Amino acid sequence: MIELKGTSWQQRYSMKEIFTLQCRILDKPETLAKFCDIIAKTGSFISDIKLTGTEDQFLLRDVTIFAPDKKQVEKIAKQAESTGDIQILNIRNETLQTHSRGSIDVVSRMPIKSLTDLRMVYTPGVAEVCETIQKDPVKAWELTGICDRVAIATNGTAVLGLGDIGTLGSLPVMEGKASIMAEFVHISAFPILINSKDPDVFVETIVRIASGFGAIQMEDVAAPECFEIEEKLEKALNIPVFHDDQHGTATIVLAALINALKLTGKQKENCSCLMLGAGAAGTAISKILLGFGIGDIVVYDSFGPLYRGRTEKMNKYKQELAQITNKKNQKSPLAEGFKDKDIFIGVARPNMITGKMVESMAKKAIVLPLSNPVGEISKEEAYKAGAAIAADGRDINNAQAYPGIFRGALDARATKITMAMKVAAAQKIAELTPHGQLVPDVLDRNIHRQIADAVAEAWKKNK
Amino acid sequence: MIELKGTSWQQRYSMKEIFTLQCRILDKPETLAKFCDIIAKTGSFISDIKLTGTEDQFLLRDVTIFAPDKKQVEKIAKQAESTGDIQILNIRNETLQTHSRGSIDVVSRMPIKSLTDLRMVYTPGVAEVCETIQKDPVKAWELTGICDRVAIATNGTAVLGLGDIGTLGSLPVMEGKASIMAEFVHISAFPILINSKDPDVFVETIVRIASGFGAIQMEDVAAPECFEIEEKLEKALNIPVFHDDQHGTATIVLAALINALKLTGKQKENCSCLMLGAGAAGTAISKILLGFGIGDIVVYDSFGPLYRGRTEKMNKYKQELAQITNKKNQKSPLAEGFKDKDIFIGVARPNMITGKMVESMAKKAIVLPLSNPVGEISKEEAYKAGAAIAADGRDINNAQAYPGIFRGALDARATKITMAMKVAAAQKIAELTPHGQLVPDVLDRNIHRQIADAVAEAWKKNK
Repeated sequence: MIELKGTSWQQRYSMKEIFTLQCRILDKPETLAKFCDIIAKTGSFISDIKLTGTEDQFLLRDVTIFAPDKKQVEKIAKQAESTGDIQILNIRNETLQTHSRGSIDVVSRMPIKSLTDLRMVYTPGVAEVCETIQKDPVKAWELTGICDRVAIATNGTAVLGLGDIGTLGSLPVMEGKASIMAEFVHISAFPILINSKDPDVFVETIVRIASGFGAIQMEDVAAPECFEIEEKLEKALNIPVFHDDQHGTATIVLAALINALKLTGKQKENCSCLMLGAGAAGTAISKILLGFGIGDIVVYDSFGPLYRGRTEKMNKYKQELAQITNKKNQKSPLAEGFKDKDIFIGVARPNMITGKMVESMAKKAIVLPLSNPVGEISKEEAYKAGAAIAADGRDINNAQAYPGIFRGALDARATKITMAMKVAAAQKIAELTPHGQLVPDVLDRNIHRQIADAVAEAWKKNK
Repeated sequence: MIELKGTSWQQRYSMKEIFTLQCRILDKPETLAKFCDIIAKTGSFISDIKLTGTEDQFLLRDVTIFAPDKKQVEKIAKQAESTGDIQILNIRNETLQTHSRGSIDVVSRMPIKSLTDLRMVYTPGVAEVCETIQKDPVKAWELTGICDRVAIATNGTAVLGLGDIGTLGSLPVMEGKASIMAEFVHISAFPILINSKDPDVFVETIVRIASGFGAIQMEDVAAPECFEIEEKLEKALNIPVFHDDQHGTATIVLAALINALKLTGKQKENCSCLMLGAGAAGTAISKILLGFGIGDIVVYDSFGPLYRGRTEKMNKYKQELAQITNKKNQKSPLAEGFKDKDIFIGVARPNMITGKMVESMAKKAIVLPLSNPVGEISKEEAYKAGAAIAADGRDINNAQAYPGIFRGALDARATKITMAMKVAAAQKIAELTPHGQLVPDVLDRNIHRQIADAVAEAWKKNK
């Protein structure tokens, strides 16, 4: 339905390495075409070509490509040089370059160019600001940056597809999220690395430093500890606490699903869903879908379906989930579980399901293999097996959801982020999606603004 | 010696309120002059006059003034309006305006305008950066913002002249310091408010979150807890820990004193000093002066001089200080203590000393009443009592010292800030001061850069 004929952007998208070849190219009409041909034939993909300088008979160019790995890039360089017309001066890893010295900065909102500036921003002027807040702490919201400030807190236990790599290794993700918040919704987010896997230590640390923030974003914290931490933080604090891997993901999945239902003409209350994965994302998606009104969900973890009465490999959170899902208390193994399901959502591990499973689903099946960086099944296979709609973790990205949710919560001065706010965000995202697509343009600031407004509105209505 | 004839800038400087009068002024040659006259005669002081618009017979102007308080400003407005030629449209409190929504922002170092940008800063590109750090944690220094990132940590127990006003009230100071770091030396400093007065809780919290920072700046933490916290943090962490109220102040005081000695022709080893105040600043200044080679120092707290054998109102840190200062073990009360001293340094409370005390000092006395916002004696009185040099907390500001010290420590990847680094900073500051002054221009970025280089050099030599 939304499949393209040529090599799809999604396939390009799975090439995660981005390199720039800095080249000296002989200034003849055919040289650049020859170079493009070499790149295409090795299976890489050109992002940008820039002219960076000219020399007597040569042009200097930066050619930025997406490639599956560095070996491919070296192969391209070798082949290009063997033409005799192209010299590769340098190969630059753009991603590492982007993260060189980090991706965020703290800056002064005003230039300090005069003594008057200095006197206002610092002593003696600042004393008046401090006293104003001391007398009326509510004023801190307008006289400090708290109104725009979010802690992105992690213990580094569940980072991307990489797992428990520790806080330091996770920092580029936290910085990346902060970059996105700054760029899309003018939020000052700041990474807070907590060096402990103990949920109580995490909670205690955040509670001690929370007064400097307007909201807390939990990020890349492993399940089931993430549930406990979130519950305890919500109880302890009167500012929003939002675990993005749960609720950001749940929000954007719901948005995509609202559009998928529209495109396939399915009614939410009649839909059945197989959810593969009972961790942070699986749990939160299940809850938001039920809150939205999806008919039934059967959740599978690596041990099988969650059902009432199951005793093996359960925990408090899975028990809860078993209570509210799986109406018929099905105990069938995964392959059988697919039979007649309208929706598949995967938030587990790469390549866990087969075309055959998808074939057994109901007509006009919606297949969302969201595991990163590689889905539970490729979209191509899903379509081949008869899916009406297939989308993976590259199509459905929580960066579409969390910036607007935080902006809206801060704007409304919400003390928590409620289910109503998340559903409002999902509905707004769905509404702003061009017909035929599942989600809108993630780069459109105006869309993030509108999501924020919907979220703020939902808080004001229901608080 | 450095006294001016007219009303000195320092007197203006004590007017801590900054207001902008937004006015509609009749466009006649004499109106602005009349307005300036009104402002001057009420004892206020014009900072800036800006033309903001024109109307038929009127000019719209923003007139920014320093005033002792808001009442004065209202008086000015009333008198101006009574002329019939000037209409006051609005009175804006510039300081509160400056701190509106805080004085700092977190921003993305790169614009996110394309999918390629997003892929590099966030998933999937960022995974490579995370893995690189996971394999070799040392790389975090170049692949994240740690190399530029400083926590400004406080418990809000000793804020400016305001005392224990709590963390929230202190936040504008932390933000102001962060603004200064960003503007002067491109450091990303971020306020961390710790809601506990227990030194161990402070230490534990910082240790848990320290891996996200390249250095820790302690700020506005009361003595004697600040000494304990600093000691424990230095032991626990392998990044610099620097309590600005101690060492930033000590560094800039030493710099000023080096110049004052030069101007008065005094020899450091022959100099005796009376230090009033045995808190964070007094202790640190005493230590740096002794490290530098000042002959002798007698430290007074509110109970009297510190001496060996004193038992009342002592603590571990005062005991230590009594061991290394007060060579003759003097026990004389404050007024007698001044006799024949070359240097007075006050870091205690406003108006604690008299002209008579200064009169009893040695010839060419150096008098530094640094208490904020009002000194232990006014400079005017000090000069009247025969001081050769007098300077107060407005002349001698730690904003001259800490930005360069942190920049240098981070540049050199120092694991601590040593006495040698602080002395090197002070000597560089002294060296860069124009003849006849005590300290250089705090706004000159190039001076901060040179201080940083001197500090980095000192680390490399002595580490």
